[in-house]
Amino acid sequence: MAASAAILPDLATQVLVPAAAVVGIAFAVAQWVLVSKVKMMPVERRGEGSASGPGKNGGASEYLIEEEEGLNEHNVVEKCSEIQNAISEGATSFLFTEYKYVGLFMGIFAILIFLFLGSVEGFSTKSQPCHYSKDRMCKPALANAIFSTVAFVLGAVTSLVSGFLGMKIATYANARTTLEARKGVGKAFITAFRSGAVMGFLLAASGLVVLYIAINLFGIYYGDDWEGLFEAITGYGLGGSSMALFGRVGGGIYTKAADVGADLVGKVERNIPEDDPRNPAVIADNVGDNVGDIAGMGSDLFGSYAESSCAALVVASISSFGINHEFTPMLYPLLISSVGIIACLITTLFATDFFEIKAVDEIEPALKKQLIISTAVMTVGIALVSWLGLPYSFTIFNFGAQKTVYNWQLFLCVAVGLWAGLIIGFVTEYYTSNAYSPVQDVADSCRTGAATNVIFGLALGYKSVIIPIFAIAFSIFLSFSLAAMYGVAVAALGMLSTIATGLAIDAYGPISDNAGGIAEMAGMSHRIRERTDALDAAGNTTAAIGKGFAIGSAALVSLALFGAFVSRAAISTVDVLTPKVFIGLIVGAMLPYWFSAMTMKSVGSAALKMVEEVRRQFNTIPGLMEGTTKPDYATCVKISTDASIKEMIPPGALVMLTPLIVGIFFGVETLSGLLAGALVSGVQIAISASNTGGAWDNAKKYIEAGASEHARTLGPKGSDCHKAAVIGDTIGDPLKDTSGPSLNILIKLMAVESLVFAPFFATHGGILFKWF
Amino acid sequence: MAASAAILPDLATQVLVPAAAVVGIAFAVAQWVLVSKVKMMPVERRGEGSASGPGKNGGASEYLIEEEEGLNEHNVVEKCSEIQNAISEGATSFLFTEYKYVGLFMGIFAILIFLFLGSVEGFSTKSQPCHYSKDRMCKPALANAIFSTVAFVLGAVTSLVSGFLGMKIATYANARTTLEARKGVGKAFITAFRSGAVMGFLLAASGLVVLYIAINLFGIYYGDDWEGLFEAITGYGLGGSSMALFGRVGGGIYTKAADVGADLVGKVERNIPEDDPRNPAVIADNVGDNVGDIAGMGSDLFGSYAESSCAALVVASISSFGINHEFTPMLYPLLISSVGIIACLITTLFATDFFEIKAVDEIEPALKKQLIISTAVMTVGIALVSWLGLPYSFTIFNFGAQKTVYNWQLFLCVAVGLWAGLIIGFVTEYYTSNAYSPVQDVADSCRTGAATNVIFGLALGYKSVIIPIFAIAFSIFLSFSLAAMYGVAVAALGMLSTIATGLAIDAYGPISDNAGGIAEMAGMSHRIRERTDALDAAGNTTAAIGKGFAIGSAALVSLALFGAFVSRAAISTVDVLTPKVFIGLIVGAMLPYWFSAMTMKSVGSAALKMVEEVRRQFNTIPGLMEGTTKPDYATCVKISTDASIKEMIPPGALVMLTPLIVGIFFGVETLSGLLAGALVSGVQIAISASNTGGAWDNAKKYIEAGASEHARTLGPKGSDCHKAAVIGDTIGDPLKDTSGPSLNILIKLMAVESLVFAPFFATHGGILFKWF
Repeated sequence: MAASAAILPDLATQVLVPAAAVVGIAFAVAQWVLVSKVKMMPVERRGEGSASGPGKNGGASEYLIEEEEGLNEHNVVEKCSEIQNAISEGATSFLFTEYKYVGLFMGIFAILIFLFLGSVEGFSTKSQPCHYSKDRMCKPALANAIFSTVAFVLGAVTSLVSGFLGMKIATYANARTTLEARKGVGKAFITAFRSGAVMGFLLAASGLVVLYIAINLFGIYYGDDWEGLFEAITGYGLGGSSMALFGRVGGGIYTKAADVGADLVGKVERNIPEDDPRNPAVIADNVGDNVGDIAGMGSDLFGSYAESSCAALVVASISSFGINHEFTPMLYPLLISSVGIIACLITTLFATDFFEIKAVDEIEPALKKQLIISTAVMTVGIALVSWLGLPYSFTIFNFGAQKTVYNWQLFLCVAVGLWAGLIIGFVTEYYTSNAYSPVQDVADSCRTGAATNVIFGLALGYKSVIIPIFAIAFSIFLSFSLAAMYGVAVAALGMLSTIATGLAIDAYGPISDNAGGIAEMAGMSHRIRERTDALDAAGNTTAAIGKGFAIGSAALVSLALFGAFVSRAAISTVDVLTPKVFIGLIVGAMLPYWFSAMTMKSVGSAALKMVEEVRRQFNTIPGLMEGTTKPDYATCVKISTDASIKEMIPPGALVMLTPLIVGIFFGVETLSGLLAGALVSGVQIAISASNTGGAWDNAKKYIEAGASEHARTLGPKGSDCHKAAVIGDTIGDPLKDTSGPSLNILIKLMAVESLVFAPFFATHGGILFKWF
Repeated sequence: MAASAAILPDLATQVLVPAAAVVGIAFAVAQWVLVSKVKMMPVERRGEGSASGPGKNGGASEYLIEEEEGLNEHNVVEKCSEIQNAISEGATSFLFTEYKYVGLFMGIFAILIFLFLGSVEGFSTKSQPCHYSKDRMCKPALANAIFSTVAFVLGAVTSLVSGFLGMKIATYANARTTLEARKGVGKAFITAFRSGAVMGFLLAASGLVVLYIAINLFGIYYGDDWEGLFEAITGYGLGGSSMALFGRVGGGIYTKAADVGADLVGKVERNIPEDDPRNPAVIADNVGDNVGDIAGMGSDLFGSYAESSCAALVVASISSFGINHEFTPMLYPLLISSVGIIACLITTLFATDFFEIKAVDEIEPALKKQLIISTAVMTVGIALVSWLGLPYSFTIFNFGAQKTVYNWQLFLCVAVGLWAGLIIGFVTEYYTSNAYSPVQDVADSCRTGAATNVIFGLALGYKSVIIPIFAIAFSIFLSFSLAAMYGVAVAALGMLSTIATGLAIDAYGPISDNAGGIAEMAGMSHRIRERTDALDAAGNTTAAIGKGFAIGSAALVSLALFGAFVSRAAISTVDVLTPKVFIGLIVGAMLPYWFSAMTMKSVGSAALKMVEEVRRQFNTIPGLMEGTTKPDYATCVKISTDASIKEMIPPGALVMLTPLIVGIFFGVETLSGLLAGALVSGVQIAISASNTGGAWDNAKKYIEAGASEHARTLGPKGSDCHKAAVIGDTIGDPLKDTSGPSLNILIKLMAVESLVFAPFFATHGGILFKWF
């Protein structure tokens, strides 16, 4: 039992957590105000823009430094505004359609949750002995059914709002970034980055505050039954992740169908630049960035955050914190997130206020510094929270036994997750940035055509898995050995504690991508396009880093949830060498392939339709190629919308129904194997798919930019090498933006779903084996 | 304990097993004699060739029926003979170089085996208590070290001889197939198929007979210590698989570097046909088929066969068969293989004697019939062996306990493996044959270019994993539940019991491929090339089926070996939810990616060099394109040889050293996790890589052949669609012939190696955890 109490009084915890959330929201609003100062109307020429003279930087791209141009072209601003509206409207309309269908699915699923969990004790309203300490009485299973359902809906709605707000902010920021690019790359960078920060902080803070409120409200009913309270709270994670799944898959299909379709006809066949306004799919492509990479990714990371908090809380509730009702240590996961918001706030100032970007080659280092600074600051934060928020020693539930743990051990668990995240981030950067040899090798392989480009790209993706897996394995080993499943859960939280910064640099990517698109469509000068392209190239790398974090944390979260599930399902071991578990393991390892097959095929089919429509328009609309007639953007938007709505249901159903079917028919042992198999197999495909795609994209950009002697031998745009690189980029699109990032949701979601349904499976599951 | 004895007397077993092997070898010799009747000099025109008139078949390709042509062109035969010699010499010289390097590696590894196993009891020559029954005395650990090393060398040599003979037969048969193609597709088919059968029967019979002799010879020393005897015999499996690994990887890199290099310049840049004699890489390409697809695959399947036999024997030796010294039931695995040879012999007659191929569209059904007939005949064979060769009831070792099993249950185990193999074969055929919609869809996606072709192809490969995994999972569940690890081992043997037929239809592919190459190089008519192309297209499908069998059986074999390892290492459970096991699981699941990254990159780099050399020759040798000068074939052969020798060592070392490092430093629990992870992850990548590659190859052939209305809209050769299809085909080459098929060796080899070294790991392993 606990030898001492936490230093931090419970009242302080009750104040600190919501206060941190409020600070986060206030900071987000402040950043938003700064972004909104970029007016969507012609601005007066300001003098300070060119204050920093040239010559300060020796970079090859020096000419991009702060040279203002085109500030007084009124019609450009109007055009930007018009395009921004078109993108924003397209995105809003798509998300509403998506939410309508997903809402229906989620409603049905909510009913299922209620019915399944309610039936555990036959909808009895009587109190029952607690699951983990049979001598005490807990709230009835029916209460768990009701509150789990409510938490599920709450998680889904928070996820939905997170994604939607992210999209709104991004579509608000994209044209402003374009306009700021007229003043120089530094201004544009700050606008894009600030907008990313708005999203990051809003999401981190709202996730925290909703969870905090839910715990307090549910607590009114549950009182001292913390075991029941936090079991019901797990529904929050399930809701968040289910929504995220549809967001990622639906948005991913939308964006890549449009992107692939636009590129195949525009860039490959018609030799017109990316985002050329003559391309009928160009609006759909830009809408896609916002619904896929922004809304989908926001939902995804929110889901990870919610799940790792829930996993930690549910284990804590059956450890000494929960048994002895120690409030502050119980909320340790929320305290970490609170400190994380503050740490990220400090970090953000380094990018926006303390330093200024003056040249293109400073962008990537600036973003990289964000990762390092946030990790360093947060390490101190974790040490503080672990010292103040935890008793010196306590016990953690470990598959039936209670294991004694010290507060410094828990510090190590969180810190190892945090630093593993940084390592994953750096490795991802190494394999996807065109500043290093792996991407340059891929670019070089384009000399012999698309086939070698694809072979090298696939090999790069496979190779990029090695170090992240070792980092994940080491974190798991350390945190698991020190503090069992609770250790793994807080390691995941550690990796996600800098989520606000992670999301900021992640959202920065698609905003820059859109900014470039708007510059092209508004017919702005070549130089401005070069600036936005430079922002975008860095964005490809940060997007890959963001995906690395999402996948790494998903692996840890899933394992923690899996452990909680096993405990709740009352099985003591998951022995690979039993037939029931082994078949689960091998089928589980297959699921990511099945899922990827569905999503890749969906993108491919939708892209085929898009290509045919774009070709049709080029062939039948007179004056389109000459730019005298406008293309029919709406039809392309409709193709993407219809395809993604129709195609997101089967993969979604696969993920959401598999644990139910396996649990009901084959029972908890097979389900355990399934979760383990999906986890260890899915994480590999997810990492390799993201990095392969990112590398291809940047290999293409490397050739286009022609910044080095080597790159110029491969270029210019339109050369055979470049064409081969475009093919690789196109193949990478569904890998990096549809299949890959959805896979981490697959593994998390199946684990959290199993945990929520564990009471049902433990009592009524495995009917097939019961029959035979 | 056993309630009854087997019906078959021990003496009969002693006679039957070698007799079946002798029959198999005799049959192989007979087939070889028939093939050798095709003289490599001008033949007299024979009348019976065109006996079957047209009109019998309504197929679209009716015109290919038995129309003799060019029979009297003397110089064609001479040319064929000359090309055949060049290919044969190239292959022989490469294999000798390969064997020299591998021999060195294997020699060092043999010493390691001796030292590690000898050190278990400090090289003591004293008898010791048996591992599984401590009350009896067994031979010293030193004896195990010596005999394991001898068995290892024996397995390696048998594997080497299998591969080498296969190559010799194939290079003997290829030009003969070309010459027979002049008489019609049926004649050519029979020549290619008979040659495949020579290899199949020779390999199955020699594998059986060497194992049988080794058991009897080792038995002279071991006497009643069957536990020690069969533990030492396991080295045979390790030797076979180690050799196979280098054969597959080295041969795979060789063949695909040449193939990719030849295609990229020849077909894509210069628009000359495949196998055109003007292409400097054409000889290397044809040599590659023989050293990779023939020698490598022969070694591979021999390894699977040896390992599954060893896995079954080692478990049987600690079950009632071994404890009570029941000779006939003990040799049940060898009896199955013996009956398998007879069943395949009958099956072969259906292809070569009972029916005749008259049209192109009869080829695939004929090969498919081979699978069905052999499975049906073998089912009866298994029933017989299980009835005659086993007592009615007996006990099987099951992780410490003895489980009672009945003979009909063992029949079910073998039969489920056999039939699961057939299902895998059919699914593979469905996904890789251009007669069905999946490949046609991939071909159709070429309309929008190479990118969609690749996306669709990858999705197809992922999807093709689903049913085979269910089939494997079902076999494992049934056999595992009925007869523990012995059940799984004999299920693997069941899948491999028709190995002679499997190898025959598998070897048929590269022989036909070579035959086509020779026809092109010898300047034979367009019609003859069409006939060999048709044989080759069917060969692509059968090659994929062969790989499906290899992978499916590898999954079962690995699990059985893994189970035997766990028993020998004296750990009772492999609980995923312990940190030691879990890190093994996730790192194990990563290994196939690491391995694939190495092999893909190797092929890519070697292909780059090949492309540059081929381009150089086209640019600098005057008259090459016009066909007036001969290219410098030897330099291309040297590039492939050097690349494969240099590049096969790192992946080989990864696979062979990983179990040693993990076992020594992390111990048997982590190693168990590693094996399970590599197994469940590797099997998925292996299946999807093989099928994706096979589908791309046949999608290209579908467009080239233009046999349907749809296919003609995509073609002809040289169209944009066709170019996109060629890119897919080129990407698929390393996937289907280097990475994919090597992966099944990876999972088997790590498992068998762990089993061989288990006594060492159990006593001295896990030093890292012992230190901390």
